Amino acid sequence: MMTEKHFRSNIQIAIEKVRAENPMAPSITNTVTQDFVANAQLAVGGSAAMIYLPDEGELMAKLARAVYINVGTLMPFYAETISRTLRALEKNKTPFVLDPVAIGMGNLRAELLLQMKTFKPTIIRGNASEIIALAKLWNLHEEEGGEVRGVDSTETVDKAAHSALALAQYTGGTVAVSGENDLITNGNVMIYSLGGSKLFSKITGSGCALGGVMAVYLTVASPIIAAFTATAMFNCAGTRAAEKAPTPASFKLNFIDELYKISAADVASSEFAVFNAE
Amino acid sequence: MMTEKHFRSNIQIAIEKVRAENPMAPSITNTVTQDFVANAQLAVGGSAAMIYLPDEGELMAKLARAVYINVGTLMPFYAETISRTLRALEKNKTPFVLDPVAIGMGNLRAELLLQMKTFKPTIIRGNASEIIALAKLWNLHEEEGGEVRGVDSTETVDKAAHSALALAQYTGGTVAVSGENDLITNGNVMIYSLGGSKLFSKITGSGCALGGVMAVYLTVASPIIAAFTATAMFNCAGTRAAEKAPTPASFKLNFIDELYKISAADVASSEFAVFNAE
Amino acid sequence: MMTEKHFRSNIQIAIEKVRAENPMAPSITNTVTQDFVANAQLAVGGSAAMIYLPDEGELMAKLARAVYINVGTLMPFYAETISRTLRALEKNKTPFVLDPVAIGMGNLRAELLLQMKTFKPTIIRGNASEIIALAKLWNLHEEEGGEVRGVDSTETVDKAAHSALALAQYTGGTVAVSGENDLITNGNVMIYSLGGSKLFSKITGSGCALGGVMAVYLTVASPIIAAFTATAMFNCAGTRAAEKAPTPASFKLNFIDELYKISAADVASSEFAVFNAE
Repeated sequence: MMTEKHFRSNIQIAIEKVRAENPMAPSITNTVTQDFVANAQLAVGGSAAMIYLPDEGELMAKLARAVYINVGTLMPFYAETISRTLRALEKNKTPFVLDPVAIGMGNLRAELLLQMKTFKPTIIRGNASEIIALAKLWNLHEEEGGEVRGVDSTETVDKAAHSALALAQYTGGTVAVSGENDLITNGNVMIYSLGGSKLFSKITGSGCALGGVMAVYLTVASPIIAAFTATAMFNCAGTRAAEKAPTPASFKLNFIDELYKISAADVASSEFAVFNAE
Repeated sequence: MMTEKHFRSNIQIAIEKVRAENPMAPSITNTVTQDFVANAQLAVGGSAAMIYLPDEGELMAKLARAVYINVGTLMPFYAETISRTLRALEKNKTPFVLDPVAIGMGNLRAELLLQMKTFKPTIIRGNASEIIALAKLWNLHEEEGGEVRGVDSTETVDKAAHSALALAQYTGGTVAVSGENDLITNGNVMIYSLGGSKLFSKITGSGCALGGVMAVYLTVASPIIAAFTATAMFNCAGTRAAEKAPTPASFKLNFIDELYKISAADVASSEFAVFNAE
Repeated sequence: MMTEKHFRSNIQIAIEKVRAENPMAPSITNTVTQDFVANAQLAVGGSAAMIYLPDEGELMAKLARAVYINVGTLMPFYAETISRTLRALEKNKTPFVLDPVAIGMGNLRAELLLQMKTFKPTIIRGNASEIIALAKLWNLHEEEGGEVRGVDSTETVDKAAHSALALAQYTGGTVAVSGENDLITNGNVMIYSLGGSKLFSKITGSGCALGGVMAVYLTVASPIIAAFTATAMFNCAGTRAAEKAPTPASFKLNFIDELYKISAADVASSEFAVFNAE
């Protein structure tokens, strides 16, 4: 059974390891928020590299210790890039984070997200609507809701809990549902991480940046610790940033600064609740 | 006849409606300023989604209440994406904002902008050079000037007034010319919106962000009100940001924050001049 | 022999000319840092335009006084765009800056960078690993090291000095190696520019922005003056920004503001060391 204490100590270790090792977590991600993703990855002590070409995806799957895949703004050549990268990730047993942004929009996105099922993403991160929609697409759980409106969620985190559990039990990895209180589950333990700020919804890309930072922690920690560490980090830094700045652009600036400044101990002592399945 | 009072009350309504309804205005736009466009759209209370693929353009044309098309950084597949999106916009009677960025540069841009003529954009937003060049390209008005230097204007707003009128009379929509004093016309009434800051020319993407925010207001208001509300909003927020920060990066940050903070009443009472054609 | 005094006076002239003439330096560059590149170019007084299509590259090679090419995030169509732009640059004798980002990653990047050898880039700017790897790829100098880790350098500037000299002697242009102390050489004189900040490694794109700003100065100055002016500018502005802000996002904001504010005289009197070959 994973205890609160276990989590606190492992969060602290993950944060310190990344700051010491400066690990690279390459991304195939959308063009809108690349800058934010990269700067968030750098702020926590990691390193970033964004790519578009199939052979570069294969190379990264071989060289990197974890990869971030976000299907936000697909272009035609992503069909080959993502497919070949997925096969290379599997072949090299490289863990990866999937961000099923805007699931439900368009044929290529549907095809790629269906394909992902076979490859069992190590971490799946999305908002409640996306998690519900992915569990449905993979025929794992049929929940009400999951109508995605572009990149926004129309559902609460609680509504997505069963879908998240079903996805995690299927992949054997971890699923993180972002929202007011964030839910992280490996299909067994369920963690609710508190904090953050409503201002996250007033800036673009905080979900993408969170996924990218999860990939950074995945280079040094288990899926559940990586997903949880990144989430706790964002919640702590978000809370502090919102205290300093009640407006979106200043909030975003302070948020990146806080990611850089915050002590591992402070994140490790942040507020969360752990539930273990019987 | 549209009076000053009419405009003031409708600006206020448009701003409040967007803040209440959080409408999404998807974009096909350039890669350079996507982040700024999206964050400006979010700051005024809207929601953003950027896309590249033809079937996603068609879907957005069907689902969204207004779309933003900016031809800034064309890639090869834009030929199909923009063509198919235009047809879907027409079929679904969805209004859209056209930003003819860098008109005159390259074959694909020329082809797409020529094609646009048939589809009569609901709002056309550009700098003076772009508006003059578009009226010429569409054989509506032949004005001196309109040589576009990349993304910069080499002409003043006044020089583009006849081109703007000709375009608006042809489309039956609204044309907005950005510059020191901004001109907005529906081919009948002409509005000059004052304010803003010269610092807008020292940051990249303020024109794109303005076009994107016009699309947000177009989800809840008529073309002329939408174009005018966005312009007045930018002028008020720009003036306030420049008072707080005389340097470009701080100005941009304050500008986004002001878009978020500024009261609808303050924007509605901003300085402008209305002229009705006989 | 180029003296310190010679450099100080030419730096000042270059900075003032750009601020007076607002020259455009178009880019073919990566999608991650386009916004930063463009805003840095604007902050120093230049103008920006980013492009993807082959005929636009050809047009820019003809119209612009200098072009920036950064191979950071290649997409399939870059093969044709970069090849045709290189031929047009040569035909029009337009100088250009090459940024061999992530050299060693993938086939297209290798092909394009090999192709560049024939076209002798006017300025080559990279970190130490990239410069070592490029000299190796072009069979000009075989140095230990040059294993590139994504976009990060794993070598010091000093280790790349011989590679930089070999490249500059081959191209007849200038080579700039970014690092703790920056090295600029035209194959004869070697300049070390001091200052800057370690925070540059905690934000994404400072190298790209530096390359873009070199292209801006290349519109008004010789290759060595252009490369050196941009470097000295970044070092001065970086030092000042770091004094104001010890965290990455605030540092980046202050850095752009300082690029805009700093006086030409202050940059011209910055710390550097010049060595002339016998």
